[in-house]
Amino acid sequence: MEGRKVTGWAARDSSGFLSPYSFHLRKTGPEDVVLKVLFCGVDHTDLHQIRNEIHSTTYPLVPGHEVVGKVIEVGVEVAKFGVGDTVGVGCMVGSCGECLCCKTNREQYCSNMVFTYNAIYKDGSFTQGGFSSAMVVHQNYVVKIPEKLSPEQAAPLLCAGVTAYSPLKQFIGSKKVIKAGVLGLGGVGHLGVLIAKAMGHHVTVISSSNSKREEALTHLGADHFLVSSNSTEMNKLKNTLDYILDTVPVKHQLQDYLPLLGVEGKIFVVGAVPEPLQFSASGLILGKASISGSFIGSIQETQEIVEFWVEKGLKMMIEVVKMDYVNKAFERMEKNDVRYRFVVDVAGSNLE
Amino acid sequence: MEGRKVTGWAARDSSGFLSPYSFHLRKTGPEDVVLKVLFCGVDHTDLHQIRNEIHSTTYPLVPGHEVVGKVIEVGVEVAKFGVGDTVGVGCMVGSCGECLCCKTNREQYCSNMVFTYNAIYKDGSFTQGGFSSAMVVHQNYVVKIPEKLSPEQAAPLLCAGVTAYSPLKQFIGSKKVIKAGVLGLGGVGHLGVLIAKAMGHHVTVISSSNSKREEALTHLGADHFLVSSNSTEMNKLKNTLDYILDTVPVKHQLQDYLPLLGVEGKIFVVGAVPEPLQFSASGLILGKASISGSFIGSIQETQEIVEFWVEKGLKMMIEVVKMDYVNKAFERMEKNDVRYRFVVDVAGSNLE
Repeated sequence: MEGRKVTGWAARDSSGFLSPYSFHLRKTGPEDVVLKVLFCGVDHTDLHQIRNEIHSTTYPLVPGHEVVGKVIEVGVEVAKFGVGDTVGVGCMVGSCGECLCCKTNREQYCSNMVFTYNAIYKDGSFTQGGFSSAMVVHQNYVVKIPEKLSPEQAAPLLCAGVTAYSPLKQFIGSKKVIKAGVLGLGGVGHLGVLIAKAMGHHVTVISSSNSKREEALTHLGADHFLVSSNSTEMNKLKNTLDYILDTVPVKHQLQDYLPLLGVEGKIFVVGAVPEPLQFSASGLILGKASISGSFIGSIQETQEIVEFWVEKGLKMMIEVVKMDYVNKAFERMEKNDVRYRFVVDVAGSNLE
Repeated sequence: MEGRKVTGWAARDSSGFLSPYSFHLRKTGPEDVVLKVLFCGVDHTDLHQIRNEIHSTTYPLVPGHEVVGKVIEVGVEVAKFGVGDTVGVGCMVGSCGECLCCKTNREQYCSNMVFTYNAIYKDGSFTQGGFSSAMVVHQNYVVKIPEKLSPEQAAPLLCAGVTAYSPLKQFIGSKKVIKAGVLGLGGVGHLGVLIAKAMGHHVTVISSSNSKREEALTHLGADHFLVSSNSTEMNKLKNTLDYILDTVPVKHQLQDYLPLLGVEGKIFVVGAVPEPLQFSASGLILGKASISGSFIGSIQETQEIVEFWVEKGLKMMIEVVKMDYVNKAFERMEKNDVRYRFVVDVAGSNLE
């Protein structure tokens, strides 16, 4: 049975052009939370999906997986959330609940994980994302947004933020000052710098050019800025870093960065580069280095990062736009013309 | 000042052909141990070095870094070892002693680590390996060989054995049965199977052909044998392994093996493949997988593996040869015509 009628902005074909689209949410189940969407972040994955660049898109598609909203209805068995709460939804809205990953708070790795949009929910319905006036989501995939956190600042934490936080949280409680490298200064990278700094790390931003030097050092508070093509500077930092958060989503040479790691240093790959990545075995072996992947974060980690953000008093740079600007926003994002994340003011866009 | 005169078998040029060579050990220092060499294992690295394939060889070169001997003299400050003890020397005979790696029992990663041969010792002398009637080694780089362990069985543990043991020891004490993969069944791989089995792991040997099936299952006691070109079998094992010990020293496709790993699965690369290795970022990310390097093992780990070997009552397959067979042994090793390691009976070869 169909639930409430809502209006989203959907892509209809691989042009990826978004325009208004009316559809029905599912009927509110006993464990469901219905939220009026306030803000929704704009991510590179949205761009890939609306253009069917991953070859899995079903149209019409309403993207958006950094969703902050106000609860307007809860199912009869929902105790954790009440009407009026500000809540967040990230990249996933379901998982099996039974497997080892689900039982150990790593449900993002569940093989039956349900993405927030462009996926089949367990009732057979098609999921649609946060570029929509409202959403219905099972309570287990909803996080609380702390009162002190503005909803537009919260939105990018739900995907980009937790993606940076998840591999970095292992260093919380370290007794020594961790030497961090952040490779790439886009949505995830800029949050990575802020989060690593808030964890007390000494942060070096590694970039292919000097163009982001001032913003890295002044706006984001990085300790050091390293241009990867400058071999003298690269040599100076040899064997010094405990980790590199590698957020670069396009092909790059890992072996250029491996020498920067100290013994047992780690590279965390979070950007799904389409081409194979390469490294030199001896570089890895002689430094006991590791290269590991990390995929967004769990629901628990998503809750942790929004609380960490408030606790540390962090502030990110975003550009808030209305929904009728979203096609332009995708265009600009593709050219890296945004500091550092577009957030759509969904509630302020009068979708209905 | 020169110490005792000894006879080794040395390569004189990049033909790698070994023949008798007389040279002097350094004078026994206060912390030095002098050992009469009993047995010495033959490793692939020896072959690379005698032929100058790493472009760093100084001739004449006496190879050999899996050395078991009998102590014949100790320096005045040596308390740990006494004349008559059976001892072992692996890949290194020195390190700075001051850096973080040295101070945390990871001296194999010390940037001033001194290789057992083809290296400059801190007194300026040139190090020569275990294909020699005697050696002098600082006590900190000498391990005790337990009485119950035969010296010829002990030799391959000092490089190949500890190379397999070092990355695997993190699983000791695991409450669940670890699912292991061993890729490549040479010197390190075969010891990896035996060690993993002795740790209680369920071991799958992954090979490019069926030719080693019987020896893997029957002689080495592996639980399962997987031919990597058999996609049906490979698919069946998808997402099942906790780790893969990758001992293959030549180019291979990591992305063929990544799908075998369960969530947070690890690939341990121990073979110094000259060509770059490749992997797919999304394969790593979506499984939270990691690829890490591991270089031999520490002196403490070397001591641990010889004790572990005795405690578990393990037995490896070796082929013991005399020194005058060593050129032939290298030839056969190059063709993988050895099950699984040549060990030279140095004391039985009447070098002097």
